[in-house]
Amino acid sequence: MYFYRERLINEIVPDRPDPEAAKVFQEILGGRFGEMRTMLQYSFQGANFRGPATQFRDLIKGIFLEEIAHVELVQHTINALLNQSGDSPTQQGEMAALREAAEDANPHQYIIGAQSSVPEDAAHNPFLGTYVYSHGNLVSDLLDNLVLESTGVIQKTRIYEMSHNKTLRETLAFLIVRDNAHQNAFAKALETLGVNWGKLLPIPTYDITRLPECRKYLDMGYNNIQFNFRLDDTRIGEIFQGTSPSKDGGELRMVEPPAGFPVPELPELPIHYAPDPQVRARTNI
Amino acid sequence: MYFYRERLINEIVPDRPDPEAAKVFQEILGGRFGEMRTMLQYSFQGANFRGPATQFRDLIKGIFLEEIAHVELVQHTINALLNQSGDSPTQQGEMAALREAAEDANPHQYIIGAQSSVPEDAAHNPFLGTYVYSHGNLVSDLLDNLVLESTGVIQKTRIYEMSHNKTLRETLAFLIVRDNAHQNAFAKALETLGVNWGKLLPIPTYDITRLPECRKYLDMGYNNIQFNFRLDDTRIGEIFQGTSPSKDGGELRMVEPPAGFPVPELPELPIHYAPDPQVRARTNI
Amino acid sequence: MYFYRERLINEIVPDRPDPEAAKVFQEILGGRFGEMRTMLQYSFQGANFRGPATQFRDLIKGIFLEEIAHVELVQHTINALLNQSGDSPTQQGEMAALREAAEDANPHQYIIGAQSSVPEDAAHNPFLGTYVYSHGNLVSDLLDNLVLESTGVIQKTRIYEMSHNKTLRETLAFLIVRDNAHQNAFAKALETLGVNWGKLLPIPTYDITRLPECRKYLDMGYNNIQFNFRLDDTRIGEIFQGTSPSKDGGELRMVEPPAGFPVPELPELPIHYAPDPQVRARTNI
Amino acid sequence: MYFYRERLINEIVPDRPDPEAAKVFQEILGGRFGEMRTMLQYSFQGANFRGPATQFRDLIKGIFLEEIAHVELVQHTINALLNQSGDSPTQQGEMAALREAAEDANPHQYIIGAQSSVPEDAAHNPFLGTYVYSHGNLVSDLLDNLVLESTGVIQKTRIYEMSHNKTLRETLAFLIVRDNAHQNAFAKALETLGVNWGKLLPIPTYDITRLPECRKYLDMGYNNIQFNFRLDDTRIGEIFQGTSPSKDGGELRMVEPPAGFPVPELPELPIHYAPDPQVRARTNI
Amino acid sequence: MYFYRERLINEIVPDRPDPEAAKVFQEILGGRFGEMRTMLQYSFQGANFRGPATQFRDLIKGIFLEEIAHVELVQHTINALLNQSGDSPTQQGEMAALREAAEDANPHQYIIGAQSSVPEDAAHNPFLGTYVYSHGNLVSDLLDNLVLESTGVIQKTRIYEMSHNKTLRETLAFLIVRDNAHQNAFAKALETLGVNWGKLLPIPTYDITRLPECRKYLDMGYNNIQFNFRLDDTRIGEIFQGTSPSKDGGELRMVEPPAGFPVPELPELPIHYAPDPQVRARTNI
Amino acid sequence: MYFYRERLINEIVPDRPDPEAAKVFQEILGGRFGEMRTMLQYSFQGANFRGPATQFRDLIKGIFLEEIAHVELVQHTINALLNQSGDSPTQQGEMAALREAAEDANPHQYIIGAQSSVPEDAAHNPFLGTYVYSHGNLVSDLLDNLVLESTGVIQKTRIYEMSHNKTLRETLAFLIVRDNAHQNAFAKALETLGVNWGKLLPIPTYDITRLPECRKYLDMGYNNIQFNFRLDDTRIGEIFQGTSPSKDGGELRMVEPPAGFPVPELPELPIHYAPDPQVRARTNI
Repeated sequence: MYFYRERLINEIVPDRPDPEAAKVFQEILGGRFGEMRTMLQYSFQGANFRGPATQFRDLIKGIFLEEIAHVELVQHTINALLNQSGDSPTQQGEMAALREAAEDANPHQYIIGAQSSVPEDAAHNPFLGTYVYSHGNLVSDLLDNLVLESTGVIQKTRIYEMSHNKTLRETLAFLIVRDNAHQNAFAKALETLGVNWGKLLPIPTYDITRLPECRKYLDMGYNNIQFNFRLDDTRIGEIFQGTSPSKDGGELRMVEPPAGFPVPELPELPIHYAPDPQVRARTNI
Repeated sequence: MYFYRERLINEIVPDRPDPEAAKVFQEILGGRFGEMRTMLQYSFQGANFRGPATQFRDLIKGIFLEEIAHVELVQHTINALLNQSGDSPTQQGEMAALREAAEDANPHQYIIGAQSSVPEDAAHNPFLGTYVYSHGNLVSDLLDNLVLESTGVIQKTRIYEMSHNKTLRETLAFLIVRDNAHQNAFAKALETLGVNWGKLLPIPTYDITRLPECRKYLDMGYNNIQFNFRLDDTRIGEIFQGTSPSKDGGELRMVEPPAGFPVPELPELPIHYAPDPQVRARTNI
Repeated sequence: MYFYRERLINEIVPDRPDPEAAKVFQEILGGRFGEMRTMLQYSFQGANFRGPATQFRDLIKGIFLEEIAHVELVQHTINALLNQSGDSPTQQGEMAALREAAEDANPHQYIIGAQSSVPEDAAHNPFLGTYVYSHGNLVSDLLDNLVLESTGVIQKTRIYEMSHNKTLRETLAFLIVRDNAHQNAFAKALETLGVNWGKLLPIPTYDITRLPECRKYLDMGYNNIQFNFRLDDTRIGEIFQGTSPSKDGGELRMVEPPAGFPVPELPELPIHYAPDPQVRARTNI
Repeated sequence: MYFYRERLINEIVPDRPDPEAAKVFQEILGGRFGEMRTMLQYSFQGANFRGPATQFRDLIKGIFLEEIAHVELVQHTINALLNQSGDSPTQQGEMAALREAAEDANPHQYIIGAQSSVPEDAAHNPFLGTYVYSHGNLVSDLLDNLVLESTGVIQKTRIYEMSHNKTLRETLAFLIVRDNAHQNAFAKALETLGVNWGKLLPIPTYDITRLPECRKYLDMGYNNIQFNFRLDDTRIGEIFQGTSPSKDGGELRMVEPPAGFPVPELPELPIHYAPDPQVRARTNI
Repeated sequence: MYFYRERLINEIVPDRPDPEAAKVFQEILGGRFGEMRTMLQYSFQGANFRGPATQFRDLIKGIFLEEIAHVELVQHTINALLNQSGDSPTQQGEMAALREAAEDANPHQYIIGAQSSVPEDAAHNPFLGTYVYSHGNLVSDLLDNLVLESTGVIQKTRIYEMSHNKTLRETLAFLIVRDNAHQNAFAKALETLGVNWGKLLPIPTYDITRLPECRKYLDMGYNNIQFNFRLDDTRIGEIFQGTSPSKDGGELRMVEPPAGFPVPELPELPIHYAPDPQVRARTNI
Repeated sequence: MYFYRERLINEIVPDRPDPEAAKVFQEILGGRFGEMRTMLQYSFQGANFRGPATQFRDLIKGIFLEEIAHVELVQHTINALLNQSGDSPTQQGEMAALREAAEDANPHQYIIGAQSSVPEDAAHNPFLGTYVYSHGNLVSDLLDNLVLESTGVIQKTRIYEMSHNKTLRETLAFLIVRDNAHQNAFAKALETLGVNWGKLLPIPTYDITRLPECRKYLDMGYNNIQFNFRLDDTRIGEIFQGTSPSKDGGELRMVEPPAGFPVPELPELPIHYAPDPQVRARTNI
């Protein structure tokens, strides 16, 4: 069973609205290598796990718990990038903003939703269940998870280059470093099965000079820790310990989850009937 | 942020393997009105919520938390229905069992997975992000959620009729009564906005004489309660209180989550390389 | 604007329920070469037509009108094949019937619908808008329509072989002969642009000795006529006239629509909550 | 059977070409809550209807008939928005126009079609049969239809804000008011089953001061009438009568269909081989 | 079995990067009438062929072989159009270029791939197996192939108009003329079965004055030849001989494949971790 | 450019028709980890390759060439499993056979095709372009290819257990051993970048006692060789050499392709109009 504290796992750094950034960021939410796929993949691998070596199951489930929070973080990041993008003092200006949305943005974010996140990728394609992979062979599952987390970093570094927007870059930097930690987790699990990774990891060796927002997360050791979201015992530490398989050579360790950050409240959008005139009328009485 | 206690929200009642039941049960997991859609729909509606009437957001988020546990329960139910379905003392018998799987079962449960749940529906179609609905207008979201929970009951009663299997029927009965509770939650929210439901709810008025497994859950009042999975404060009780909008006229109330039931451990399936010969070799040393 | 007389374009011949037949018949409704695609393809080609040669537009629109009635005919044929398939005097028998449905039938017809037609094909895949083709080049549109109507005959002859069921075979026979007529229409349009078809048509040269139900429709000349569903003038007769391009060498002509047949009323299915206990309770007062 | 008079149900108001508007308008044609889905949903619900309360079937079928005309209206609106968008006196200008199309428009409207409507949504995703919903439980069907018509209004008001184009706005205004009428129809049907809607309807309470084109349709009472497209008797009036469930409190009534408006003829587009050089060569002789 | 000489079937003519052109060109690769569909369609028709008239099978297989080379040519054309599109001397400029990519380009070419081709169409929709058509009836297969090759020309002429880019136009011109030759092949096969095409072909009668790059390929007779990629005997010449069915009246003949052109080497893209820092580090030692 | 010798890469061993086997075998053709995906993935990775380390490109392309032959082999294996499955001396028997096909087989193999292979998976879902993965980062591409080839073995061993049919088992055994060789190729490439695989490979360690048909291919060394289908030079041998990364410790080496086996000729199926009555009529004259 799942419990919740209404705190985001990382901060939403404020900046100007940026519909194009909101469009491409959708890849990180609903794309083939996005957080929805990642969350669901670990959900299925956890439930379908076979055999007594449950330290591997606990590892997968532990990362699953963080991925639920990543989905939430990405939804709020997209919403922050869209917020006020169609909002301006005069109708003409409003129109201009919405016009722009029709040109370069994801139209679904403005038609299906009231300027908010949708379960789609950067090309507006819907999320597909076929992205999710769980076939019971543990080695193949672990290797696939390693590919998934590696691709997560690669795609995030590419989106990072598309905009200077601070909201976009801060969330990406946090997720890049956490993907690195998850790479370490799955790579370490394979190490226990006999692989020596040499200097191959992390994939890619992301360039910290080009991604300065990553530095503080690395300084906090976020690439070598796992947050423990379990309210009961877990065997994850049997795997996630010792020297990191990444070339930095740090020490893997379990820690308590961060205190977290407030969940943003989005303003009403009367022009888009969000939430609805009825709500204000009724809840004000 | 999300926390976990490794307990199922309801019991997996043992019975014989039943691959055909496992096939049709997939509709409840990955179908258009299944638990994956339900979970993700409330995830998006919660994150995309606008305005200060956060009692509605808390209601939606509160049900979202239970849906994560429903996904897990359905995955384990399907796995229990598949378990040992391809398992028999002689190779010939084993073959016969797998042969049957090729004929009437979902082949993906036996090829992609090692006799386990997949992110598909009863017709083997992959889960689609287009099922998920969140557009910011609160009234439309609430009405859609009511349709979703109603359809949940309808589809579950139809699947119930397809097999006497106790594993299948017990999980369905639990979920039917919980869908009833969630109907009450969304219908009550619409009541606060002015609707009087008359005698319409629940949809459908499911026939307890045909669904005897439901009775104990009704006796426990499971159709009129919400479990509180929050570790902090929530406004859900501002809506989920007072007389039920369903014709039974019970009293809505918040309660602590149940103690839960053990998460099953699935046996190894060497014939399907699940988890993998490497795992046993390495973890035994 | 579209007007309706509640009559089916052909008779639903009664026979026993046949869920397997209902499953494969879905190809004719929601498949890549089914009636939904055919209807929508002509809808788009009609609306997107360019230039003054509107006799071609009228031809396409005229066939579109019949296709709406074909969709309705196929929906009712499938419903007739499903009717009472899960209905039996004792619950045990009922269960057996539904069990069979879980094994060999389309589970969506029993879960999503209450034993009724769905917008899917024989393999349970959903209808796709990508099947529909309209690109403005008239020659390519006409050739594609010829392929579409030819494939319609081929697929229907193959499904015909799968069951002796009279409900199935009668509807197929009617549609095969009408597809032949539509082949003639598009082939004749291409003839006005210079093609001489030799002895190639119809495609395929279906074997009347194997498809005896077709004979009466051929005797009525249904392969060489177009029904005129227009309430105003149409230029369709400028094309659909003269010698048939098929090797039978008949004479093409426009006729009034048939008197039609009653639209069946499906019985209630209380076990599947269809329509709903509320409906009887309220409409009986 | 279906009959046709070649008249549009509303006027196409001329204005400048606007490819971006044509792109987003596709949501109203092929989107999850668009007219194709609406038409097909009522087609399936009508054919799959069970039981003797055929006044509900007649209501659904009656609205189905209007939806066929809506599909046609939207196709022609999109075509009008695209018309001459790639047309200019010099090749250089033509190129510039097409170049623009490659940047901000739906490329399929220019590649698959000859600047015309396609069976896709605003994000270029193909129409999916999974959007269509019909499960036999009448209450759930009616509620879902209410959600569908509500969402229709919401999405149309959002697209309205994206452009001042008169072609776009006039069609949207007409459809918004008609969606309101269809909401009233399904809400009234639920009223006969016991619901009292209070002041909840219409959803949303669209703001007439922001949507001035809607006023004349409201003045004509188009939000409280149903057009009768039946050539035979219908029981629709048993439901669609009495006081409107919307807060305006008007009187529901059946009327004859409007006289209609001419169906536009699109000019040839030689550069796109539409219809084809052959057609002119042959039909001029 | 398949053998390879690393030469492109036509030249990649250099010009400036053009992300918008790269976006729309995807239709020719992964679209419903693109080269991936064409290649796979002939692959299935070849393998599924029935009966002793293997001259038709050899014809289909012969064109299949060329289509594998077309896929490769289109992939490299797209890559050439993308190359250096996100490359500039300063990071600020680089950002600007990538920013532009986020606005008008296919974001998947920049996120999933490192500025390279993807298995999608111009609207970013994934390639679908449902495009591929093979049903065993030879006449229908041949007619469908004729529609496919005709549509290939039509779509390519429309994309040609969208940009003056020489890379784009040269590849399109080559493919247009080859599609013409493949039309001739399938039309000739139908001619052997009795059809007389009159003056209908090619479809469309593309206008050489508007497509000057096509001229040299016509002068080389590329519209009337088939390249012979077989290393053993083939019966293709039994069909592909005699007078062309196109109105130019040329003579069909088999020839040796062209000498071919070098396969381009794409530069590394360090900013996108392509290929990877590890590769340079390891392969330089 | 691609050249062809009409020989299958392995033998089709004759056995009885087996429609259920033909159904599940489709996973190996059109499934997420099937040969179509494998072929197209290497096609894209080859064309999109960046940088001067072309030994990796040559490795990927070399395997691509074999995958085209695998697609062909699997198509013919499925056709052999379907052949005569609906063929029997009397119509009644024929009917019985087709009836069976409607119950347990893939209906598309009998409706869309004339008892032949289709571009779908074991659950009848169409092949999707989203399965194909190529993003330019070589390490991630190689790891993903290793997952792909591993999953290939796992799925094939599972399908192997479903039937004793010799046609099915022989093709599977050949492909399992070749997937092992391709695992070795990609694992060796990663070894050159620093990884030491320990005893992890092959994945899974398939059990030769349960898969006796594999033995002769292992005896021929098929798990440690690459066939060279290049007609010009290739650098593949710079990687594919030395000790195998699999625990058998064999020696990797390049060899000439096998002599191959005859491509089967499928008999005509008059009942399914395959190829067509016209063909016999015309080609006999």
